Amino acid sequence: MTATITPVLDQIDRDLPQALERLSALLRIPSISTDPAHTGDVDKAADWLVAELNALGFSARKDATSGHPMVVAQGGAAEGPHLLFYGHYDVQPVDPLDLWESDPFDPQIQDTPKGRVIRARGASDDKGQLMTFVEACRAWLAVHGSLPVKLTFCLEGEEESGSPSLVPYLEANRDALRADLALICDTGLFDAQTPGITTMLRGLLGEEITIHGPARDLHSGSFGGAAMNPARVLTRILADLHDDQGGVTVPGFYDDVPEIPDELRAQWDGLGFDADDFLGRVGLSVPAGEKGRTALEMIWARPTCEINGMISGYTGAGFKTVLPAQASAKVSFRLVGQQDPHKLRKAFREFVRARVPADCRVEFHDHGASPASVMETSHPAFEAARAALTDEWPKPAAFVGAGGSIPIAGYFKSILGMDSMLIGFAKDDDQIHSPNEKYDLDSFHRGIRSWARILDAVSKA
Amino acid sequence: MTATITPVLDQIDRDLPQALERLSALLRIPSISTDPAHTGDVDKAADWLVAELNALGFSARKDATSGHPMVVAQGGAAEGPHLLFYGHYDVQPVDPLDLWESDPFDPQIQDTPKGRVIRARGASDDKGQLMTFVEACRAWLAVHGSLPVKLTFCLEGEEESGSPSLVPYLEANRDALRADLALICDTGLFDAQTPGITTMLRGLLGEEITIHGPARDLHSGSFGGAAMNPARVLTRILADLHDDQGGVTVPGFYDDVPEIPDELRAQWDGLGFDADDFLGRVGLSVPAGEKGRTALEMIWARPTCEINGMISGYTGAGFKTVLPAQASAKVSFRLVGQQDPHKLRKAFREFVRARVPADCRVEFHDHGASPASVMETSHPAFEAARAALTDEWPKPAAFVGAGGSIPIAGYFKSILGMDSMLIGFAKDDDQIHSPNEKYDLDSFHRGIRSWARILDAVSKA
Repeated sequence: MTATITPVLDQIDRDLPQALERLSALLRIPSISTDPAHTGDVDKAADWLVAELNALGFSARKDATSGHPMVVAQGGAAEGPHLLFYGHYDVQPVDPLDLWESDPFDPQIQDTPKGRVIRARGASDDKGQLMTFVEACRAWLAVHGSLPVKLTFCLEGEEESGSPSLVPYLEANRDALRADLALICDTGLFDAQTPGITTMLRGLLGEEITIHGPARDLHSGSFGGAAMNPARVLTRILADLHDDQGGVTVPGFYDDVPEIPDELRAQWDGLGFDADDFLGRVGLSVPAGEKGRTALEMIWARPTCEINGMISGYTGAGFKTVLPAQASAKVSFRLVGQQDPHKLRKAFREFVRARVPADCRVEFHDHGASPASVMETSHPAFEAARAALTDEWPKPAAFVGAGGSIPIAGYFKSILGMDSMLIGFAKDDDQIHSPNEKYDLDSFHRGIRSWARILDAVSKA
Repeated sequence: MTATITPVLDQIDRDLPQALERLSALLRIPSISTDPAHTGDVDKAADWLVAELNALGFSARKDATSGHPMVVAQGGAAEGPHLLFYGHYDVQPVDPLDLWESDPFDPQIQDTPKGRVIRARGASDDKGQLMTFVEACRAWLAVHGSLPVKLTFCLEGEEESGSPSLVPYLEANRDALRADLALICDTGLFDAQTPGITTMLRGLLGEEITIHGPARDLHSGSFGGAAMNPARVLTRILADLHDDQGGVTVPGFYDDVPEIPDELRAQWDGLGFDADDFLGRVGLSVPAGEKGRTALEMIWARPTCEINGMISGYTGAGFKTVLPAQASAKVSFRLVGQQDPHKLRKAFREFVRARVPADCRVEFHDHGASPASVMETSHPAFEAARAALTDEWPKPAAFVGAGGSIPIAGYFKSILGMDSMLIGFAKDDDQIHSPNEKYDLDSFHRGIRSWARILDAVSKA
């Protein structure tokens, strides 16, 4: 194994400055998929990746969808295992912009007390991560001239906006995309020294509700008291979503929520997760979920309901004595086990409708749904990858859970009949979806080396 | 009386087109007092009024305050009653701008099914109203050369932003401003045919609360469940403010709320207020306040609590799975009887603090406070004005209540020891504080004529 991999790792080490320059070029493209004003930028990022992959000898193209394009590329060995690599090149919005210490789309290499980082929107989620795999292929090709596996790339441009085109695209391209195993790089390290292969992912149900009351904004003096205020209706609905024990009150919400198997619980207990540190780093101290659950359970194995945004009436400087005509909120649920997002969407809407008084009406907007995923770890690639990661990092790799939702793994299983191996190098303090997002250069460097080792190990498994 | 007033009324009728042009010039100045970006425009509106009043022979000036300037003018008869006229030249913000059918600061004369209107921000509240008095003086001066009363103008530029400079200004200028009676033109007709003299005004208490949770916006997948969401905390606090009977739950809130005297209730019952029509015109049907109260009581004689605005997290297009770092709301209370705004602010803050969990902190912002006012109607000017209004309008004038807050009346009483007579010509459908604000030309025209008749009647009372 050493004869094959050592020169590749050396090449990766030598080429790191150039790899960072390439990542910076991609980060400069503000590919915010949820904002129609950035449609052209999302397309530009896709073009950039197509050019990169073609330059590496892959047959790459931009496939149109009803939304943002899919970047697809094929190449690698004619024989051996066929892997599909998935990442996404779109990014989250950047507001509140005034909290960024530098331009979110002008990447900066910075020294921090925990090491060097590259700071920009998408540095960690997911441009930095997907480039670890691209750079591993580049180094392998530079040393060996050809890859040890057959490879398909599938890089999405709508992951941060609910992936509306993903399922139709996978359904329309089953044969072209089906591989032996998918590699997904959109998850994190367990800690700075311990890599993880994520085997449990929460699902996601996104809803937007708007309560309409009076036909127009009213003067709160002329009408206040007599006229129903939709903000009052909305806050009551949102307040009702949790009970005093931190549980979610939508009827049937916990019907399909399993308890964690004892062996998995024992493995998690052994990870030494420090809840005080996890919360302390973001200025908190008390786990906010269901009473009687550990913080790790709350984020890996328990479902949630969160208000992601809400707005009503006058929110500018000063004061306006307006009685607003409408009030709206974006609400999401993280799902686990066998919770059915479609059944829960229906239950949520019934829950809301039951609380809307005669003089108001409610409007719903569907912001996507995906069930939770639990990976099948019996595929030999899982053990091979675990050993390869253990070779690269200070501590042994572990099978872990993840609080975030990566619905693609579920779709690869249900549509393409393919298992997924989720490996990523992000850290909890990467501030993804927040101002000042960063990616550790250590994550980037070891991430590239990890993928080279995994390609080697999986090709021999 | 006829010999004095008839030629003035004729002059008003002839001069109406020019009066409308002058009003339009004032309406073109976007004097939004709550928005620092419009500070220069507020000043420009003050200069415009100073020039107008000087041109009419008053000694007018712009008095600096710590905020926007006060326009003060003096003139009129050396003998006879001394009246102080109050109006305000600042206006509300115009958002949501996309709901305006024309530029809010480009006044349009329009024909509507209910008659001609002038449409612009401030057309009714309060530029159109204050100009009815200026134009009455102009016509009187054109016909008679001098006014029948001694007159002081006090025109404010901060009424729509909580009047922060008003009390210090009144306190510093007691002697210059004290008159026999104040005339305040910032209220409405009871209906299109019935003028009102407002003798009860609700007070106002404005508060802004911000709940701070995590140190930064978090990813709702990585942290959701374990991290406290301040939007969840805020909605629970806001939802708790009302009970199931529509009452406000802040402890002690109703301690100083009197029942309406039987004779006043009988008078109000006689007005034939049509609650179905009042609510129906804004798309509502069910009085939303305390159960067992009439809609007229709810807006004239009962206190309220309203959410005027709230914001948290991501509120743009699409969806963002963010767990917000903070959530805030603007909340106001309309006060009646002897409710003490300072005592209630304290009670409200205690109510909020008691509901803030360990991992959050709350920040309060004071947006002003004024108690309710009940006028002393024994001054002979009240009966004189009632008769003068009855001469001008199709139906007899009535003493009425008002849901809105005009704290100036209370300050004139407490600081200058002066009673106030509140007379205005706005209509419920003027859409003040809302998009497409308008003022009926009938209100403007009869309003000018009404003031001429009132000047005549009061000078002889």
